[in-house]
Amino acid sequence: MGETLRVALIGAGFVARDHAAAWHAQPGAEVRCVVDADPDRARSLAAEFGVEHRDTDFGSLVGHPGIDAVDICLPPRLHLESTCAFLAAGQHVLLEKPFVTGLEDAARMLEAEQHSAATLMVAENWPFASATRRVRRLVDDGALGELFMLRAQNESALYVEHDGEVAAALRLSAAGGGFTMTAGVHNITLASLLMGGIESVFAYSTERPASPEPFLDRDVVISARFGNGGIGGMFFTGRSLHVGGRRLAFGLTGTRGTAEFDILSGSVTYTVDGERTSIEQDQPSMGFAEEIAHFCECIVDGRTPLTAARRQLESLAAVLAVYRSLYDGREVRPADLLAQADLATAVAGAGGGVDG
Amino acid sequence: MGETLRVALIGAGFVARDHAAAWHAQPGAEVRCVVDADPDRARSLAAEFGVEHRDTDFGSLVGHPGIDAVDICLPPRLHLESTCAFLAAGQHVLLEKPFVTGLEDAARMLEAEQHSAATLMVAENWPFASATRRVRRLVDDGALGELFMLRAQNESALYVEHDGEVAAALRLSAAGGGFTMTAGVHNITLASLLMGGIESVFAYSTERPASPEPFLDRDVVISARFGNGGIGGMFFTGRSLHVGGRRLAFGLTGTRGTAEFDILSGSVTYTVDGERTSIEQDQPSMGFAEEIAHFCECIVDGRTPLTAARRQLESLAAVLAVYRSLYDGREVRPADLLAQADLATAVAGAGGGVDG
Amino acid sequence: MGETLRVALIGAGFVARDHAAAWHAQPGAEVRCVVDADPDRARSLAAEFGVEHRDTDFGSLVGHPGIDAVDICLPPRLHLESTCAFLAAGQHVLLEKPFVTGLEDAARMLEAEQHSAATLMVAENWPFASATRRVRRLVDDGALGELFMLRAQNESALYVEHDGEVAAALRLSAAGGGFTMTAGVHNITLASLLMGGIESVFAYSTERPASPEPFLDRDVVISARFGNGGIGGMFFTGRSLHVGGRRLAFGLTGTRGTAEFDILSGSVTYTVDGERTSIEQDQPSMGFAEEIAHFCECIVDGRTPLTAARRQLESLAAVLAVYRSLYDGREVRPADLLAQADLATAVAGAGGGVDG
Amino acid sequence: MGETLRVALIGAGFVARDHAAAWHAQPGAEVRCVVDADPDRARSLAAEFGVEHRDTDFGSLVGHPGIDAVDICLPPRLHLESTCAFLAAGQHVLLEKPFVTGLEDAARMLEAEQHSAATLMVAENWPFASATRRVRRLVDDGALGELFMLRAQNESALYVEHDGEVAAALRLSAAGGGFTMTAGVHNITLASLLMGGIESVFAYSTERPASPEPFLDRDVVISARFGNGGIGGMFFTGRSLHVGGRRLAFGLTGTRGTAEFDILSGSVTYTVDGERTSIEQDQPSMGFAEEIAHFCECIVDGRTPLTAARRQLESLAAVLAVYRSLYDGREVRPADLLAQADLATAVAGAGGGVDG
Repeated sequence: MGETLRVALIGAGFVARDHAAAWHAQPGAEVRCVVDADPDRARSLAAEFGVEHRDTDFGSLVGHPGIDAVDICLPPRLHLESTCAFLAAGQHVLLEKPFVTGLEDAARMLEAEQHSAATLMVAENWPFASATRRVRRLVDDGALGELFMLRAQNESALYVEHDGEVAAALRLSAAGGGFTMTAGVHNITLASLLMGGIESVFAYSTERPASPEPFLDRDVVISARFGNGGIGGMFFTGRSLHVGGRRLAFGLTGTRGTAEFDILSGSVTYTVDGERTSIEQDQPSMGFAEEIAHFCECIVDGRTPLTAARRQLESLAAVLAVYRSLYDGREVRPADLLAQADLATAVAGAGGGVDG
Repeated sequence: MGETLRVALIGAGFVARDHAAAWHAQPGAEVRCVVDADPDRARSLAAEFGVEHRDTDFGSLVGHPGIDAVDICLPPRLHLESTCAFLAAGQHVLLEKPFVTGLEDAARMLEAEQHSAATLMVAENWPFASATRRVRRLVDDGALGELFMLRAQNESALYVEHDGEVAAALRLSAAGGGFTMTAGVHNITLASLLMGGIESVFAYSTERPASPEPFLDRDVVISARFGNGGIGGMFFTGRSLHVGGRRLAFGLTGTRGTAEFDILSGSVTYTVDGERTSIEQDQPSMGFAEEIAHFCECIVDGRTPLTAARRQLESLAAVLAVYRSLYDGREVRPADLLAQADLATAVAGAGGGVDG
Repeated sequence: MGETLRVALIGAGFVARDHAAAWHAQPGAEVRCVVDADPDRARSLAAEFGVEHRDTDFGSLVGHPGIDAVDICLPPRLHLESTCAFLAAGQHVLLEKPFVTGLEDAARMLEAEQHSAATLMVAENWPFASATRRVRRLVDDGALGELFMLRAQNESALYVEHDGEVAAALRLSAAGGGFTMTAGVHNITLASLLMGGIESVFAYSTERPASPEPFLDRDVVISARFGNGGIGGMFFTGRSLHVGGRRLAFGLTGTRGTAEFDILSGSVTYTVDGERTSIEQDQPSMGFAEEIAHFCECIVDGRTPLTAARRQLESLAAVLAVYRSLYDGREVRPADLLAQADLATAVAGAGGGVDG
Repeated sequence: MGETLRVALIGAGFVARDHAAAWHAQPGAEVRCVVDADPDRARSLAAEFGVEHRDTDFGSLVGHPGIDAVDICLPPRLHLESTCAFLAAGQHVLLEKPFVTGLEDAARMLEAEQHSAATLMVAENWPFASATRRVRRLVDDGALGELFMLRAQNESALYVEHDGEVAAALRLSAAGGGFTMTAGVHNITLASLLMGGIESVFAYSTERPASPEPFLDRDVVISARFGNGGIGGMFFTGRSLHVGGRRLAFGLTGTRGTAEFDILSGSVTYTVDGERTSIEQDQPSMGFAEEIAHFCECIVDGRTPLTAARRQLESLAAVLAVYRSLYDGREVRPADLLAQADLATAVAGAGGGVDG
């Protein structure tokens, strides 16, 4: 590989624009090709960012000597096949979340990763957002003391039905799950990172599921016990008509102070020593650029990404534990689901730091 | 009974001051006697509000022809005996919450109430607070649509230990329970009122209980399913060092809008039709005066108080369900606990309105 | 004139886009031609809004039977000639502010208006913004009592110099003045509308002017006495590096309450009867669409626009009074400047309502 | 003088309570006597703070060997006589603001100070408030760049009339002036400190004064030019019915950032480098304790207090310049008023720091 990381963007939909902009700003990397089954989408995105080549099928890029890495923004059901192909060809993969939607697929992908020298990273941006990084520093500095309670919210109007239907991209067949799988997984990942892993969950939803499998949940409330001994609750709803965009909020209570932050607005408020400080930024970051920079660094340095697939496996297990709890009406331990799938040893140590 | 309601204040501690001030402002009522085992406390409170008589024992007031009603601000363990005595004598009773801390005591008190012509009301002030009344009007007018999610917080520094101990009044022996029993019960009552009763709960606490009985819990997270089909979560902690006083907050999400309010600050924020309105008041009310006015009205009109003991029985069952869930690690239905105690038929219809 | 108002957009720069979007949304009107000396700018704007015809010179449209009205977004120095030509041809004119930058030009334009049957309106959008309209209703309803104090802010980073220069469009030759003439005139117009006209002003600027003429002022503080007996102050600066966009804020103090609002964010906060209400909107309006609707109504109904040129004359006189005060170091009355220019009788009654 | 500073509190009214509490918390000092013409007021305040001696006349304390310093909280008209007596006797004086209300009295007091070895300090607390100190640090560190604009507000309901009258303590005879003299002087002092002195002012009030002397002004708007070349405006009103207590707010705009703060709430918000930080404190200080500590330090170290009388002379001159401007309708320079009173050389260098 030369000095410049030559990247192909696989999938040219909604999230691919954010990624393309982040790649564009990344020194030492260049998007060389945009791929989408819909040639118009590929053409439009390629034109916007001055990318010369485009294709409708990723197959010809597998093992292509002009492509060092791929950024896969395809729907979840296409993740396993594409990722395994590129990894087998020794090409690095940045893979949009949720990386897979079932444990069996996860096992196969982890196996592919183990047999490859290439780097696989899940494109989970919240740990890299500016609000998160600021709060992580507070936590790491001990300013909040020991964290013992977490509150998380993921509220939007994405699942408000129009003519009795949610948007096509959010339907079960495309997304592999409902709000918890596609949106709440962000909160679960970050909660796990902040609180030392998710030990057990109990969940209620407004709709009763017909099976223990992921369904098109729209509103969920979760209680959780964390690896650090703390406890917490999460609120997910795609039917909130509040003013402003999505509310992607966290509240942390520690023995010495409290913190609240929002991934979207970038606002951070914390109380330490009887003083409350609130910070707003003119240009908050949701973490896409930092995530891509981290991917590039991991490739160069041979480090394990903060959001490696085997780390995201724990988030997937927690998501599936929520769905199981909704069906069974009981507390579920993500570790038990992993053990049943013979994946217990695959999980990376939870709660690893950004530099971990 | 003459035109003026002649009242005795039984117990002259912390909350009694708020009650004394509310009685003082209530036309048609007059505090005639202050009772406390500690003569200094009785003297001090009596002096402050210009009450002539005081006593160290409530016994002499039972059946006293000069006292029409009593306001009992004693510790919970003294509630049953005192309340039953006054009810038996035909004197109206306003009784500080938690009205009792166990179902057996509840059964005996309800029996005493049934055999008395006098009015018994639990002094639960949150339904009467100015913020609550404003949000109730929004809900009743349908501005928020159908409520499907509730978020409740009760956060303070009351349980922060000094020299390894919490304040005496908060100890288990005095209070009959920990944070959920003494503070969280307010949230539980109001959540039940807003969401049509509490169907089931699941709870985590930072400390693991040694028995299914109430213990000195300090931090609890609860998931709940409500009678209206909605779901919710509650966060209780007595160890939050945030700036400002207690945080007694609620968030409601409905199919047409959202609302947030705080009982202490009186602030209310709601979003309807793409417009967010926030209201702050110079003199918000936590509901003590309105609660006492309601007690007086119920006496005059022979109505059942909004916070009648048999209505508060459901809150008690929910509190005990939380403690049971903490011990058993499973979802618990308050109705099941009531059924086990042969109290299933005693509960009043949940979710009754202020005018109910 | 047929049923559809056929409009030509003269000038295709920055503000013309806002106007084009507003025309596009206006039923009963249609932009038929876009004119700009720069053919690329004309082509680009025409393409964006699906307008077929474009031109580089407005001359051919004067008296053109296919154009009923023109929306002039040219630089101020081109306003007089173009407006007089269209008015003389009986075509209605919506004219970007500042309508002229000197009193002599104002006199000539008002004369042209008097001899024309067509409607002339200045495109001053702040009176039509959603925040303004809400506060106007409060004021008209008497909720604030008599207004006696006004505070206005117009703060942005537009005049922050890069390489020692402000943006070309803001230079003196193009704009006819500095921050007060191009930006502060909005505040002056609205303050006048709310407080019954501007009786006298005194101003300080950070730079000392070399003549009594408008100069490239960047930071100005103004004290004002208003027609309703109230007083006020205004703060204009193009060098504020605050977070968030421009701050276009007003504060009003009345004998019964207070109000604060911001034209850009649309937020409104008011206090009446010890209660403070704050309102945020998902889609606040800065008034462009309402302004254009008002223009159309005035044409159809033959009414005088709220922002008629002879009403804006008072704002111009107040702006010039500010510049005179900066040079002379004394209080200046706008009415005196008008009298000196023999324009005293031309000013419309100040403080007229939206329906006036 | 021994190790403990023995203090007499002269005047036991409203502000004396704040002072008594601050003395109580000051190590190395002790209030030995409380004096008030009204024996009940003296007795009550003495009892509250455990002071043994009290008196109705300060005369017997002049030169008393058991009193090292006096804290004079008398009405302004009694300041000159009492201060001169104590200074002549070699006793230190902390004197409530406004220290005098006329320049002739100021000249006499400064002469008395010059002939005394004792320390005279004006009890102007705003420079010592926690919000001020935090913003001063930002300014001193250069975080805001060069300050070029200041906005000040002093808004309360103190002057709202009941039965046609303002409170007795605020009447002209007692206070020596209206809102500007008694309340606005705080803003003027702090604005001067932050902006390098007040060069000239122009003012409007809602009432037109009958003479150039201080009158009972209720609402004033002031424009000011400052010693550092910056400009600013101030809004004073005692008739604002906003929610919350007094609004004692400042806004600063500098070439690198902005800051806003409020003396009463202690809140501070500043923007630097595209990031806005807001700080709220659980226990903000209005500066009484720090002011008294500074007085004690100045006595011990022989330093000139930050709020020495000859520094406050400039504030007095600015206040009188405001009243003159209101009467004359023209810009007035405080320095000109001082020169007319032969006090030009008495003013200390403006803009001195807390450690100056």
